[in-house]
Amino acid sequence: MRVYLDNNATTKIDPLVKVKMQPFFEELYGNPNSLHQYGMEVRPALNEALGNMYDALNAPNEDDIIVTSCATESNNSVLKGIYFEYIAKNPDKNHIVTTSVEHPSISDTLMFLKDYGVDITFVDVNENGGISAQAIKDAVTDKTVLISMMWANNETGIIFPVEEISRFAKENKILFHTDAVQAIGKVPLDLTKVHVDYLTFSAHKFHGPKGVGGLYVKKGKNLPNLLHGGEQMGGKRAGTLNVAYIVGMGLAMKQAMKHVEIMNSKIRALRDRLEDAISQLPDSFVVGQTEMRTPNTLLVSLRGIEGESMLWDLNRAGIAASTGSACASESLHANPIMSAIGKDPELAHTAIRLSLSRFTTEDEIDYTIDVFKKAAKRLRAISSTYAYTNAVA
Amino acid sequence: MRVYLDNNATTKIDPLVKVKMQPFFEELYGNPNSLHQYGMEVRPALNEALGNMYDALNAPNEDDIIVTSCATESNNSVLKGIYFEYIAKNPDKNHIVTTSVEHPSISDTLMFLKDYGVDITFVDVNENGGISAQAIKDAVTDKTVLISMMWANNETGIIFPVEEISRFAKENKILFHTDAVQAIGKVPLDLTKVHVDYLTFSAHKFHGPKGVGGLYVKKGKNLPNLLHGGEQMGGKRAGTLNVAYIVGMGLAMKQAMKHVEIMNSKIRALRDRLEDAISQLPDSFVVGQTEMRTPNTLLVSLRGIEGESMLWDLNRAGIAASTGSACASESLHANPIMSAIGKDPELAHTAIRLSLSRFTTEDEIDYTIDVFKKAAKRLRAISSTYAYTNAVA
Repeated sequence: MRVYLDNNATTKIDPLVKVKMQPFFEELYGNPNSLHQYGMEVRPALNEALGNMYDALNAPNEDDIIVTSCATESNNSVLKGIYFEYIAKNPDKNHIVTTSVEHPSISDTLMFLKDYGVDITFVDVNENGGISAQAIKDAVTDKTVLISMMWANNETGIIFPVEEISRFAKENKILFHTDAVQAIGKVPLDLTKVHVDYLTFSAHKFHGPKGVGGLYVKKGKNLPNLLHGGEQMGGKRAGTLNVAYIVGMGLAMKQAMKHVEIMNSKIRALRDRLEDAISQLPDSFVVGQTEMRTPNTLLVSLRGIEGESMLWDLNRAGIAASTGSACASESLHANPIMSAIGKDPELAHTAIRLSLSRFTTEDEIDYTIDVFKKAAKRLRAISSTYAYTNAVA
Repeated sequence: MRVYLDNNATTKIDPLVKVKMQPFFEELYGNPNSLHQYGMEVRPALNEALGNMYDALNAPNEDDIIVTSCATESNNSVLKGIYFEYIAKNPDKNHIVTTSVEHPSISDTLMFLKDYGVDITFVDVNENGGISAQAIKDAVTDKTVLISMMWANNETGIIFPVEEISRFAKENKILFHTDAVQAIGKVPLDLTKVHVDYLTFSAHKFHGPKGVGGLYVKKGKNLPNLLHGGEQMGGKRAGTLNVAYIVGMGLAMKQAMKHVEIMNSKIRALRDRLEDAISQLPDSFVVGQTEMRTPNTLLVSLRGIEGESMLWDLNRAGIAASTGSACASESLHANPIMSAIGKDPELAHTAIRLSLSRFTTEDEIDYTIDVFKKAAKRLRAISSTYAYTNAVA
């Protein structure tokens, strides 16, 4: 049996999405910016796809949804756009507030910009893995131009106080960006109710293709392009349109939003079942209260078991999980959120992330519980740091 | 009959490339940065694809080939990288030399950077549409940090003196970038023979998918990332890898290089046949000497016929052509290269670009010649600026 429980890293393409993209790899190959029929005939599908994206976010028509090549591009667009538009022109507005557990496309970009005069405050998570709205507010100064805070954390699934902070940002005339990569399809989104200036999303996190993402931009809040050039995307993101993937992302986003309820009922129940079973193991520790998290995510530590070792045992049994973000998988550092939470250092290397999708089945979860328990028993028996007891049964 | 003669705007996907990409839209959906089997199993295809790209350019292994989302991203990466690495740090090295007929992803990016202290010299084309190597050399000052010159022009197909200028740049310790988007698959490329520091390419110009491109970077010439974040591409271009398209681009590039000879024999002959037929029409004017151009491209003007009108007649007969770059198709400006050549202003609005591919057939060219002649006759008969004579037969 093969079980894919690494859906926060990437997801499989919805079969309907795959079918929908096919014609654009075959006869419908025109450049939509061309004036002839080959160009014209791909436009209706592009319009439909963009319509799906506006619907999924309930974004007002007057606002922009700019298609990018990935969330990383969207995040770089916002931060470097803010740098060029505000900070390079006015050093008195050079401060950005963010959290210490953002995706590397936020944190590394900010560290790069630091050399060019950007001042950054990284707000730490609290002992539960959450972000205190008050801590964000306290970090703001009269030099703050932007607050950037993810909607839901990729490692823990913990949902951050986006609604409260977005309101605060608006009241204080500070721009607000949220990396919503892990929120799409998992929590209801309605941009008429939350005051977001910029919002990042990525198709491959919700059963669309890898290599396409988006950036929502509120009207009047445009920034300089990260990609200058042609007139595509209303001149806001140059580059020949990736027609097939845009069409795919549109349908994937529609499907994701349609399944938010199933994610929060059936899939949440499966995740809870997995979580309950693992929690029964002694010296296990799940990060974040269940009800504060996205319905598909579980970050768990088992004292005495290296995350890498558990990953290996699961992998041999056909189960895919991770020790943290795939974007940092090659460096065997301690899981950053575990370090941020401030648990003892030993636990930082024991984190295992299991992330479900709407395609996850009951059989797969039952099989995973069985494999996980056996692996825990085996690994603790050979652990140099854990005194094995019969409590692990 | 439908005839696609707009291959400089975009090309159809090679059916072999389409087949090769399919598994990565289905069962092979792992994130290659993941350590489990879903991640591992996609890596061999990625390695093969990158190998194809190195082979196609004959690039030394020690140099980098960075996969991007498009040529526009590659071009922005070079120019903004140069800005951050050199110009922002040292205003004494703030000068860039380029041509006045680059793609908008070069010219617009430079115009943007101008506001941040970048000094730019745009070297004009000569009356034949070519670039004089001497004019580039004359534009260089002791403040010049970069020369950026396309390998072959997108509008005319005219090949620019890349070899000479790259040698000159090296001798003068100036960085050299070439946008080779229109050269791949049309001229032989060998990076062990030409001293290029940065080279841009794009899959959809050589029968690969839209939304993936590349940037070659010589060893030791790395620039700050345009996309900061994860560890992908050796940390030089963050963002989850678009596995399907990378695999597709690799094969497309291999195929393109394999067909360079066919492009320069069979397809060149078809282009010449089309060119000869159109040239027989009175008051027609082909830009650039035939032997100085890529084998697939023809930019032609017919006095008294608006390019848009000809496009319309061709389109009604199922033939796709263009009046210039698709990236600027929505603005009905005069074709920039026609203006640059300095012909009389009336001709600037008469340009029609016909660009073939290795899939173009003899029947398609014969049909196009027939339609083109009839259209010229019809349009000149109703032209307000052209006195129709029996010479057009």
